[in-house]
Amino acid sequence: MCRSGGGLEKPIHMKIIVDAMGGDNAPGEIVKGALQAAEEFKVDILLVGCGELILKTMEENGIKSLPKRVEIAHASEVIDMEDNPATAFKDKKDSSMTVGLTLLRDKKGDAFVSAGSTGALLSAATLITKRIRGIRRAAMAPLVPTGGGGTILIDCGANVECTPEYLLQFAFMGSYYASHILGRPEPRVGLLNIGAEESKGGSLQKETYELLEKAGREQRINFLGNVESRDVMMGAVDVAVTDGFTGNVMLKTVEGTGLFFAGKLKKIFKKNALSKFAALLVMGGMEELKKMMDYREIGGTALLGISRPVIKAHGSSDAYAIRNAIRQAQQFASSGLIEDIQDNIGYMKLSGAGE
Amino acid sequence: MCRSGGGLEKPIHMKIIVDAMGGDNAPGEIVKGALQAAEEFKVDILLVGCGELILKTMEENGIKSLPKRVEIAHASEVIDMEDNPATAFKDKKDSSMTVGLTLLRDKKGDAFVSAGSTGALLSAATLITKRIRGIRRAAMAPLVPTGGGGTILIDCGANVECTPEYLLQFAFMGSYYASHILGRPEPRVGLLNIGAEESKGGSLQKETYELLEKAGREQRINFLGNVESRDVMMGAVDVAVTDGFTGNVMLKTVEGTGLFFAGKLKKIFKKNALSKFAALLVMGGMEELKKMMDYREIGGTALLGISRPVIKAHGSSDAYAIRNAIRQAQQFASSGLIEDIQDNIGYMKLSGAGE
Repeated sequence: MCRSGGGLEKPIHMKIIVDAMGGDNAPGEIVKGALQAAEEFKVDILLVGCGELILKTMEENGIKSLPKRVEIAHASEVIDMEDNPATAFKDKKDSSMTVGLTLLRDKKGDAFVSAGSTGALLSAATLITKRIRGIRRAAMAPLVPTGGGGTILIDCGANVECTPEYLLQFAFMGSYYASHILGRPEPRVGLLNIGAEESKGGSLQKETYELLEKAGREQRINFLGNVESRDVMMGAVDVAVTDGFTGNVMLKTVEGTGLFFAGKLKKIFKKNALSKFAALLVMGGMEELKKMMDYREIGGTALLGISRPVIKAHGSSDAYAIRNAIRQAQQFASSGLIEDIQDNIGYMKLSGAGE
Repeated sequence: MCRSGGGLEKPIHMKIIVDAMGGDNAPGEIVKGALQAAEEFKVDILLVGCGELILKTMEENGIKSLPKRVEIAHASEVIDMEDNPATAFKDKKDSSMTVGLTLLRDKKGDAFVSAGSTGALLSAATLITKRIRGIRRAAMAPLVPTGGGGTILIDCGANVECTPEYLLQFAFMGSYYASHILGRPEPRVGLLNIGAEESKGGSLQKETYELLEKAGREQRINFLGNVESRDVMMGAVDVAVTDGFTGNVMLKTVEGTGLFFAGKLKKIFKKNALSKFAALLVMGGMEELKKMMDYREIGGTALLGISRPVIKAHGSSDAYAIRNAIRQAQQFASSGLIEDIQDNIGYMKLSGAGE
């Protein structure tokens, strides 16, 4: 079906380009997280952003000179939330995002990590680094915490309106990601729908079902059929395929329901002396659960379909989240995932559809 | 904005028609729940279904003759999951659902409760009992457990593909439901979207936004703007408006995430002797949380837009859920909600659109 997960092997001489200026906590937390990753994962880091600010941040953390494995590429501008996502990368040609993605395109590094604007990153990655030849749209593929140890939800917001062919490509890309990066040998792929029967959903789901069913029959993906969001949460599939609107609503519902529960649990445990004592007795388990729901543990969301590895870190990432996003970028870059998509692109196109 | 919530006053001489044969636990649990409701809420019950089976169920529960306030209307057939939802009601003219909805149409009762097939109930209610004049589509409007004490999510599965006009009507109907049945004076209405900005979403969201914004400006509804699912879960709105596909995915994600959490918590508390002791200390709070997530507490989902009150109870309803669904039907029937929709239908139509 695809090359088996090389992502778990140790990469050699890998360099991750990091947008030092993107996100709510830039550059402080970004720089800190990048330095941690350089140290821990023995990975080279190319920090892109205002050199002066980056060095100042290091100084504030007691670091006088550039550590081993860390370089800086100066970029004088920063893309922020006020910028038009579609054009920000060319309106601000010397922004950390534009410079970083250009370095990625020019192979000055093996992957790019940014906690900046999702919309701007998507546009910039698509137009600077370009999509894999034959891929119609790049997609966001986060790992959602589910009963099965996590499920790849693709797409999650990059493409509000989709065609069946986009979803076919998302299914392949999600499946390769699950096998390469998560180490699941024959990832179970489901089409997110409002019922398990083949006839469920709108025209997008019905037409996509046929394409995925065919790909499953030809053993190119392990397609289980339609899957309801309830069953996705119970771990029924490794990859749930959907349009970016529905995926985004689902992702943020999981997040919101998690926060809702966490709030209720906090209240229950803080009620009185006995409940506070109870909290101590189950602290270990609760910490594990909290960790499971914490986006920072994963680090970021892969942008699949771009010709080189790009990881979108959460906008509110702290140093720990950035450290983990860099680890994820390292796995992505060494996994052979993009090559696998390239090798199999012929099966991801509708027959007769133009390039 | 609309008549204030009469739904909380005690109704007089109300009769609820109950589909005794619908759902996984029919007729046993349905009959039991209906008898409980008759007793507790002093409401008349008209049980529709196989008379022999209903009487046998009563006998098994030690009831020798029909209790006060309870009648039976015989129907020889049952619509089941194998029937085509769109045509089941006419293929099986003597089914409990068809007979029940015909009785409702003919004003032999004030509301109808069924735990049978959602699709069949929707088709049958639309074609037998009919929609309110001017309403384009009926919608499912469940109360989702959220940080704000619950949010009406409309639509949740009745209409996979929607127009902006449908969503405008859902917004009005959801708002009236929240004020009449939940007693929220000026319900906060949000359009479910993948960002708060006006420009977010696809063409459905953008066009609907304009309609809702206008209705808000004219003070017909209290429109807050776009709302993300994460914020819906935190209680940001009383009513979240969406198409039936997205709503269904969101609803089942909440359910699935709840089950995921419940499973994890169970494991944490069952780990060892100390954790089991901790469970005892917070049992009260945990029971409350469980209750909050339990669909049985609410009873069912209102079908809004039908000319008479219809409540869809969960397919796996037990007696307690049915009892609560009957209470909900009673509130719905005495609330003036349908009259309010009728009085304001002129504001829910696109100018120039035909009847």
